[in-house]
Amino acid sequence: MSLNEQLQEQKETLLSALAQQRENLDEVLPELRAVDLSEIFQELIEEDDDLPSVLELFECLPLERRANVLGYLLGDFQLQVVQAIPDGSLLSVLEEMGSDERVDLFNLLDEDRKEGLLRRMARQEREDLKRMASYEEGTAGAIMTSDYVAIPSGMTVSQAMMRVRQTAPDAETVYQLYVIDSQGKLAGTLSLRQLMVARPGAKVDDIMINDVISVIVDEVQEHVARLVARYDMLAVPVIDHDARLVGIVTHDDAMDVVEEEATEDFHKGMSIGQLEDGVSRVPLWSLYRKRVTWLVLLVFANLFSGAGIAYFEDTIAAQVVLVFFLPLLIGSGGNAGAQAATLMVRGMATGDVGVKDWGKLLGRELMVAGALGLTMALAVAPIGVMRGGEAVAMVVATSMVTIVLFGSLLGMCLPFILNRVGWDPATASAPLVTTLIDASGVLIYFSIATAVLAGF
Amino acid sequence: MSLNEQLQEQKETLLSALAQQRENLDEVLPELRAVDLSEIFQELIEEDDDLPSVLELFECLPLERRANVLGYLLGDFQLQVVQAIPDGSLLSVLEEMGSDERVDLFNLLDEDRKEGLLRRMARQEREDLKRMASYEEGTAGAIMTSDYVAIPSGMTVSQAMMRVRQTAPDAETVYQLYVIDSQGKLAGTLSLRQLMVARPGAKVDDIMINDVISVIVDEVQEHVARLVARYDMLAVPVIDHDARLVGIVTHDDAMDVVEEEATEDFHKGMSIGQLEDGVSRVPLWSLYRKRVTWLVLLVFANLFSGAGIAYFEDTIAAQVVLVFFLPLLIGSGGNAGAQAATLMVRGMATGDVGVKDWGKLLGRELMVAGALGLTMALAVAPIGVMRGGEAVAMVVATSMVTIVLFGSLLGMCLPFILNRVGWDPATASAPLVTTLIDASGVLIYFSIATAVLAGF
Repeated sequence: MSLNEQLQEQKETLLSALAQQRENLDEVLPELRAVDLSEIFQELIEEDDDLPSVLELFECLPLERRANVLGYLLGDFQLQVVQAIPDGSLLSVLEEMGSDERVDLFNLLDEDRKEGLLRRMARQEREDLKRMASYEEGTAGAIMTSDYVAIPSGMTVSQAMMRVRQTAPDAETVYQLYVIDSQGKLAGTLSLRQLMVARPGAKVDDIMINDVISVIVDEVQEHVARLVARYDMLAVPVIDHDARLVGIVTHDDAMDVVEEEATEDFHKGMSIGQLEDGVSRVPLWSLYRKRVTWLVLLVFANLFSGAGIAYFEDTIAAQVVLVFFLPLLIGSGGNAGAQAATLMVRGMATGDVGVKDWGKLLGRELMVAGALGLTMALAVAPIGVMRGGEAVAMVVATSMVTIVLFGSLLGMCLPFILNRVGWDPATASAPLVTTLIDASGVLIYFSIATAVLAGF
Repeated sequence: MSLNEQLQEQKETLLSALAQQRENLDEVLPELRAVDLSEIFQELIEEDDDLPSVLELFECLPLERRANVLGYLLGDFQLQVVQAIPDGSLLSVLEEMGSDERVDLFNLLDEDRKEGLLRRMARQEREDLKRMASYEEGTAGAIMTSDYVAIPSGMTVSQAMMRVRQTAPDAETVYQLYVIDSQGKLAGTLSLRQLMVARPGAKVDDIMINDVISVIVDEVQEHVARLVARYDMLAVPVIDHDARLVGIVTHDDAMDVVEEEATEDFHKGMSIGQLEDGVSRVPLWSLYRKRVTWLVLLVFANLFSGAGIAYFEDTIAAQVVLVFFLPLLIGSGGNAGAQAATLMVRGMATGDVGVKDWGKLLGRELMVAGALGLTMALAVAPIGVMRGGEAVAMVVATSMVTIVLFGSLLGMCLPFILNRVGWDPATASAPLVTTLIDASGVLIYFSIATAVLAGF
């Protein structure tokens, strides 16, 4: 964790500079990157309970850095800082922020403060902010920025170049340019690279790419991120339902979405609800709620295993040795099934597995799971002989193959079924798959045992 | 899966164009993006067993597109295509490829072919390829490209701009420029945006950023990707141990690494080894091997649960009703523990959780797990009363709290312990955690049962 240690050191330096009448602050502060500074601020607020130092340091930053650092802070911390800043200076920071970060921050404020700020904004700014704030979370609209470079159709290359130079200080990226027609519709795109090597007198319309990959403003953010990743884009343009350009989603925000979605899927895979923050910071009560729902549901699902066992109580009472192999058999089935489910869930999430691949994958799983079951049966058979003789060994080995095969197929199919009925395939979490297989495993095992052992 | 359907349609169009003496091929082919075309090629090879069509289509592509499409193909398919291309035309395709994709392809070839190709290359190209091929997989060197724009220190802004224009066609990105001194050492960096708004006569040394974030060539790729994501970079420069610039890792390759690592962690979390390809394409034998190792190990680990049960055989025989609650209790502990482990593993992977947070997180887990255990005990207690009376209910409820608490703490601590001894925290997979908790749960449950029920 050298990054962590580095941040600790930088924090100490900052604090000591503050303590010494801000002596070296002018040397220390400019060297820190905004994202690092924001993490130091978070630590100061949370662990050292030292909001005053944060506010003092914040005051020392030039306006642009203030906007950047504030943008990187997580919601809770943003609020604490913002609540200590008067409207006037908050307004100038907001103006300096990227439009996507501005709207995220704005959405955190209470209605009174929102109203107050909006009243003091220029009309166009106010409209833009209101519009940006209206998009639903998790959509393209919510992660896009409106700070893109738009080139009106009909411009020459040199005019466009001039436009790029003018917009450069404010735009999120100047490297991908968007050509719009007189109605604001997206007509094409070209890269700054193309522009630089083009003849200055040429029309942008003649060199632009007409077949633009774009997304609709209410497209889910996963899909947007996937497009950016697939086509190696710097940014993807976002259009409204009338094909008018309304924003762009840049590669760095797309990468954040990829990470966020992966984390969410990880948690879902273990039956944990969506956390609004990192595990070390999310409130305890929230963490409890996100974990308890499925756990309690699974308690009741596990009752089926218990019921199965109760049903076979006579078989068990006659051969208590059978219980020895119970955790092992249902555990193995659960493990193999959870593997199969995870392979499908992740494959679907990355686009590697589609619904149409179902048949082919079923055949493959059948073969792999059969081989796995046989291997594990071979591993467990000698122990069966040792503990309960040949008949028990036969029961255990047969059950192992059957349970592993059944578990794997169930685990493999569940994500497809869930997808089919419109649920997130990731709901086929390991605990759910394992619990289902546990109950089925009890039935399979004791059915086989009753049948076989009755014959002896 | 509209993307899949789209690809299917495009494939049909291509095939029918091929069949009609390539009539519309000139219209259809240019409209397809390289990555889509590569997927269509893969489908044609794998599902339709139609390599000849692929080769025919490949021949129709202009050189640059050929290089792009080949670069996007997965290893296996690359090999099949490349084996059908004579050295001469392969050489020109290789020359056209990005240096990172070129070396990946080159590494797949057999020694004879490598030798033959190297002999026909220009000296500088050969040296570059050999050097790039020498970096170990999974390091910065293996994912970087050597096609960056280097600006010699001392150049003016207008000279640098000229250099950018010259290099534009070949460079992977022209938007971030790297200033190197006379020994090839990385002296600073500046963006094209900075260059565009600077005074033409200014020296690049005066406007560049001196404090460059860079990585050493043998840095692990996860760390490289994390830096790109954290600092929202277009590319991160890669230096050798003498601080000489040797390449850059671009944002799109960093995003691929983030996805790849997430997939790997997903699989690890379910005790699946690292797959060399997507689950729908990896050979069956390989899939079997990646899954069987842990499954068999866990069979033996599960024997401890069995041994625990055997040890308490008398208690069980006296109160067969206890077996009813066994799957439920150890299942619940396993689920809670797997949740706790996953939260830590993912937190560590994203950098949200550091080793230093251990104490704080332990305290949090203690409280959350306690609350979870109590809730689940309350849920299960009435069933205990129904099935076995008050004494059994008390045993079951007490066991539930104890097992959930113990399981959660074990699940939470295991990733830290593994990290401490130098293992990947992701080895604390759900199946491993669950199996460990199963065995402990058996002991806890029956110990409590023996103690309490002996009193009645």
